[in-house]
Amino acid sequence: MKLARIGTPGQERPVVHDGAAWHDLSPLTADIDGAFLAADGVARTRAALAAGTLPPVDVTGVRFGAPVARPSAVVCVGMNYAAHAAESGSAPPERPVIFLKTPNTVAGPDDVVTIPRGSRKTDWEVELAVLIGRRASYLDSPGEARDVIAGYTVANDLSERAWQIEESGGQWSKGKNAPGFTPLGPWLVTPDEADATPGAAGAFGAGLRLRSWVNGEPRQDSTTSDLIFGVDVLVHTLSQYLALEPGDVLLTGTPEGVALSGRFPYLTPGDVVEVEIDGLGRQRQEYVAWARPAGDAGFTGNAAAGTEVRA
Amino acid sequence: MKLARIGTPGQERPVVHDGAAWHDLSPLTADIDGAFLAADGVARTRAALAAGTLPPVDVTGVRFGAPVARPSAVVCVGMNYAAHAAESGSAPPERPVIFLKTPNTVAGPDDVVTIPRGSRKTDWEVELAVLIGRRASYLDSPGEARDVIAGYTVANDLSERAWQIEESGGQWSKGKNAPGFTPLGPWLVTPDEADATPGAAGAFGAGLRLRSWVNGEPRQDSTTSDLIFGVDVLVHTLSQYLALEPGDVLLTGTPEGVALSGRFPYLTPGDVVEVEIDGLGRQRQEYVAWARPAGDAGFTGNAAAGTEVRA
Repeated sequence: MKLARIGTPGQERPVVHDGAAWHDLSPLTADIDGAFLAADGVARTRAALAAGTLPPVDVTGVRFGAPVARPSAVVCVGMNYAAHAAESGSAPPERPVIFLKTPNTVAGPDDVVTIPRGSRKTDWEVELAVLIGRRASYLDSPGEARDVIAGYTVANDLSERAWQIEESGGQWSKGKNAPGFTPLGPWLVTPDEADATPGAAGAFGAGLRLRSWVNGEPRQDSTTSDLIFGVDVLVHTLSQYLALEPGDVLLTGTPEGVALSGRFPYLTPGDVVEVEIDGLGRQRQEYVAWARPAGDAGFTGNAAAGTEVRA
Repeated sequence: MKLARIGTPGQERPVVHDGAAWHDLSPLTADIDGAFLAADGVARTRAALAAGTLPPVDVTGVRFGAPVARPSAVVCVGMNYAAHAAESGSAPPERPVIFLKTPNTVAGPDDVVTIPRGSRKTDWEVELAVLIGRRASYLDSPGEARDVIAGYTVANDLSERAWQIEESGGQWSKGKNAPGFTPLGPWLVTPDEADATPGAAGAFGAGLRLRSWVNGEPRQDSTTSDLIFGVDVLVHTLSQYLALEPGDVLLTGTPEGVALSGRFPYLTPGDVVEVEIDGLGRQRQEYVAWARPAGDAGFTGNAAAGTEVRA
């Protein structure tokens, strides 16, 4: 089963795919968000499909938004593939490395991405994303992660490497949070369906091939089986340090093949990035230059802003 | 003018103090949140007070919650006082260092704080907090910060130093996001009133003395004039890297005098922490040990969780 949100940004309505066709989920809920997921939304959706109370809907030509509205947090794990840690100049971590993105970075999977003002090093990162369905705090074992996961989706964890690494003082947040820097979707795939994907290796989204392309040329090509810390271990471990809320998004890290490696150029206006995870769907984004909104004057640039010191 | 939220957690209602007495703000808004602030909430509150349409309210013995509901982000600046950078073993940064806390860490100013399970190094940090009233993206100058700031309040940026520094792989988030780790309040003080505080140095919350105590003994004692990057510069600079949303909270950094310095012990159950900023109010928190909820079995501890590796 796949859950999604379709329509114009901020006006999305919920839909569900039962394996045969899309159905309108509006009779059950106004939106797919933390409150819906926490109130057994996925199980109630399944029951409504079985009862035949959800009318069919035509999604032809319609925009897909992110599959969850208003997450309270986007929790990210860094350096979680050994080969990517190596291309970034780091040893594989002994424990999960955590950073955060602001929820307002979340965008639809195919939305146009604005390269931020002053950016020189905008980079792609395909990632397996986990959607949290129940509050998770101090879980006792990785197995308990099963009870709090609503499903899986695709994320592109966009990153400005100069800001993340060179101008950050070591804290990655500065290069991770430009507007639109977390394309998410196209849909939430329930764990039973994700784990039935051909090639899947057991539970928790393992064994899924994940890939990225720039202008049609392959970049990343790996499998979630190469995660150093798997989804169950991540959810359990993170829950010791913070409380995951219903509707929150967990990004599990990216494999090798990004521009940071030095093997590929960074993104420029006109580029097209595609990212895909087998069984979970594909994203496609066009990249454009930042432009000042009409009627807004002046432009100092980021380099100037970053070095300003109070008089 | 001070705006606050009073009542039991999750059920707070809005109130306002006009310099003479508290008034019920419920006739104007159900809550103090980003939507209210973005819709000229502060100006409309001022007008309603002038028109006499807000009935008086007795706040005696009532709990104060955080002065804003549901921020979308809590954006933090690290190492923003030179003496604190030194006690942490760092040089003063050349540019603002950014990290994030999850919004579900925000608690009332006097709420009991649970020392997280397995914590050995829970530390206090008094900070000047800025509440954002309008969306801020790509501001052109520090002066434009004036238009997007709704007011100021007090924060205690609680931190678990072992998780933040020793077990983090360098990303501070792991030690910053335990439940209840951001006591905020007691109230939102509008910029005109904050900058009229005796000793205030011009605008943007400068010149305010900020202090902390543990069990009545002084710890931190500094002034916001010692900020390396002042509030106006921070808001302008941050807006180049991310979009600040109405209702968001910006923590501006802490001065020297925390346990991380080695001069004081970390917090233990039974401790009482007080933090205060002149003109903005005072917080008081009792600290208690984590206890497993009744009916929940097992306890592996954080050290074990942190070292788990997927088989």
